[in-house]
Amino acid sequence: MDGQLILHEYAPSGNCYKIRLTAAHLDVPLTRRNYDIMKGGTRTPSFLANVSANGRIPVLQAGSRFLPESNAACFWLADGTHLIPADRFDRADMLRWMFWEQYNHEPNVATLRFWRAFIGDDALTEVQRMQIPGKKAAGEAALKLMDEHLADRDWFAGNAFSLADIALYAYTHVAEDGSFDLAAYPSASRWLTRVAALPGHIVMDS
Amino acid sequence: MDGQLILHEYAPSGNCYKIRLTAAHLDVPLTRRNYDIMKGGTRTPSFLANVSANGRIPVLQAGSRFLPESNAACFWLADGTHLIPADRFDRADMLRWMFWEQYNHEPNVATLRFWRAFIGDDALTEVQRMQIPGKKAAGEAALKLMDEHLADRDWFAGNAFSLADIALYAYTHVAEDGSFDLAAYPSASRWLTRVAALPGHIVMDS
Repeated sequence: MDGQLILHEYAPSGNCYKIRLTAAHLDVPLTRRNYDIMKGGTRTPSFLANVSANGRIPVLQAGSRFLPESNAACFWLADGTHLIPADRFDRADMLRWMFWEQYNHEPNVATLRFWRAFIGDDALTEVQRMQIPGKKAAGEAALKLMDEHLADRDWFAGNAFSLADIALYAYTHVAEDGSFDLAAYPSASRWLTRVAALPGHIVMDS
Repeated sequence: MDGQLILHEYAPSGNCYKIRLTAAHLDVPLTRRNYDIMKGGTRTPSFLANVSANGRIPVLQAGSRFLPESNAACFWLADGTHLIPADRFDRADMLRWMFWEQYNHEPNVATLRFWRAFIGDDALTEVQRMQIPGKKAAGEAALKLMDEHLADRDWFAGNAFSLADIALYAYTHVAEDGSFDLAAYPSASRWLTRVAALPGHIVMDS
């Protein structure tokens, strides 16, 4: 697969973990290159010019080509494999959950984790602090939606484990870092256990 | 294609327009069903139970199946057509721009349009008002990134018009509604003209 693959990442990022987890399920080796986002490591002139003009991790590098956006990188790795449904509607439904994750879940569940567990409440700006109640409510609504969807299903799309599960697992399983209470979502909690029990699973800090 | 397709939408939404524009380029007829989001039309018990538990438009209905998320619906419509690159990397690169659109562009460019042109500055909450400068700066950064990417390219991914262009066109071409100055982005402006000149193009209020 296009020679050596390099994951430009910040290891505690759930978005980076998605790519490592996808690669682990596909038994694809990745070379990891770490950037300290707390010290602006992805906003240097070198990163912006050579890795991604968007100044964010993750970026998956395949030879001389660079692919930003975690869910796009997962799609590239998994294209044509069992991690993407073969059925056309199910494939789009998988993407539906991945787009939903980036719009309704990550900006709330992951952002509160980042603000509270990485930056710290005392160091937040006033604008950030004012957004906490809204993000808490939106994150809880996202977790509730997942919980209800999983009430009578094992997986998010196509009756099988797919990239949709990987994308949603990444920040859900550490949602308590953002002060969300996972015990309130029993079906989602069982799904988290199910994902972690799969052959090929790796943990976030591996 | 799965019998009649119904687009559950709010016509002025760029996310809904993406699906209409994709369908127009593919010559696929859509039946349109309108909801007034300004009056909570997508938060009714009936909508939540029968159309989408997420309470948002657009949702594309194919028979008894419902597909929320604009970019997923576009992918479903266009799967296997010229609007999605055949090359594996280019296909993922198209998705990269579509995920970027939902994360870096829509929450800034589209949200400011919605707040300023639909809700109105006077009716915004204090939390919304405080976010305007940040969203303005992030929206300008998104438009600048697009402009730089298009400096030496006609299209976003795979050297051809694709869903990435449709996804990004939807809210970029009306960015001035959110008080962004498109004249500051000459390459992006030329790309807007290029998209609108394509055979099969339809305008937003059609």
